[in-house]
Amino acid sequence: MAHIELADGMPGIRGLFAFRPEPAKPLCELGDVLLHQPNSLSAADRELVATYVSSQNDCFYCQTSHGAIAAYHLGGDEELVHKVKNSPDTAPISDKLKALLAIAGKVQKGGKHVQHEDIDKARKQGATDQEIHDTVLIAAAFCMYNRYVDGLATWAPQDLNGYRERAAAVATGGYQRIPATIG
Amino acid sequence: MAHIELADGMPGIRGLFAFRPEPAKPLCELGDVLLHQPNSLSAADRELVATYVSSQNDCFYCQTSHGAIAAYHLGGDEELVHKVKNSPDTAPISDKLKALLAIAGKVQKGGKHVQHEDIDKARKQGATDQEIHDTVLIAAAFCMYNRYVDGLATWAPQDLNGYRERAAAVATGGYQRIPATIG
Repeated sequence: MAHIELADGMPGIRGLFAFRPEPAKPLCELGDVLLHQPNSLSAADRELVATYVSSQNDCFYCQTSHGAIAAYHLGGDEELVHKVKNSPDTAPISDKLKALLAIAGKVQKGGKHVQHEDIDKARKQGATDQEIHDTVLIAAAFCMYNRYVDGLATWAPQDLNGYRERAAAVATGGYQRIPATIG
Repeated sequence: MAHIELADGMPGIRGLFAFRPEPAKPLCELGDVLLHQPNSLSAADRELVATYVSSQNDCFYCQTSHGAIAAYHLGGDEELVHKVKNSPDTAPISDKLKALLAIAGKVQKGGKHVQHEDIDKARKQGATDQEIHDTVLIAAAFCMYNRYVDGLATWAPQDLNGYRERAAAVATGGYQRIPATIG
């Protein structure tokens, strides 16, 4: 049961958005800018960063919802999403994405864990300043969304099909429609 | 030196806002909703939550800028801000704020650290569901702002007078003016 009284049937962050619409607006807009709007990083790569950080924070709702969106962008490859969550270093992804995920993993632990060497490694794989910036901010933002969702003990459905169905809608329509799925 | 190339003379999150204005807009709007817009929690109490979490995350820029804003709302009582950062349990603040700071401290560690007993304690001191919600979201949001600021190794001036001067402007004008100070 959630720590505060939320409407029935609205899982994860969606129940919180319904409870308090004022912060919901910038929270959805932030997610849309970072994950959905055009970017030199693919939507799949950005969703994998969000999924990986949510997994490191042990947030079932966020890692499952964003994992499903990542898989949608990857043509349904849920196996790849699991590999990235469990072992990004050995997953069949680009060295650039591996370097960005390593930065995201440091941000999850705390901002000061990111070292110049981590940035240099990403640059050597072709990451631009904006891509490094966006990776850090996506990782930081999911340290917020994850804590928001779990800090209020929201409900997370266990049936994965619901996440898959919403993933298709969010992957194509973005995060600013209400009700949104971010988090 | 910051991890990416930022404009000179813009400290902390302000340099990041100038580098990437698209996410800056919702990031400022979120700060304004949580810290500045009318709320049953005083602006001082909300800034103390932000300051305490930033202190626990060891983010000098955020704890100093929001600590200065909290002190402004408290009639200049910087000593009280230090007491809250160092020992919220023994600081001369209300039992309700102590209970909310305890929740914020759990959120800083991770969402699942918050237990029903923490919520019950806050309720017994008169905290409403929205006040508990806002405390959790402020704490979660500063786990983002802190990581954003330190994860990109931004510059934080050491002279406290600059923070005091900006505090007066932000405390009265809010966070949506550009350049904003949030984080």
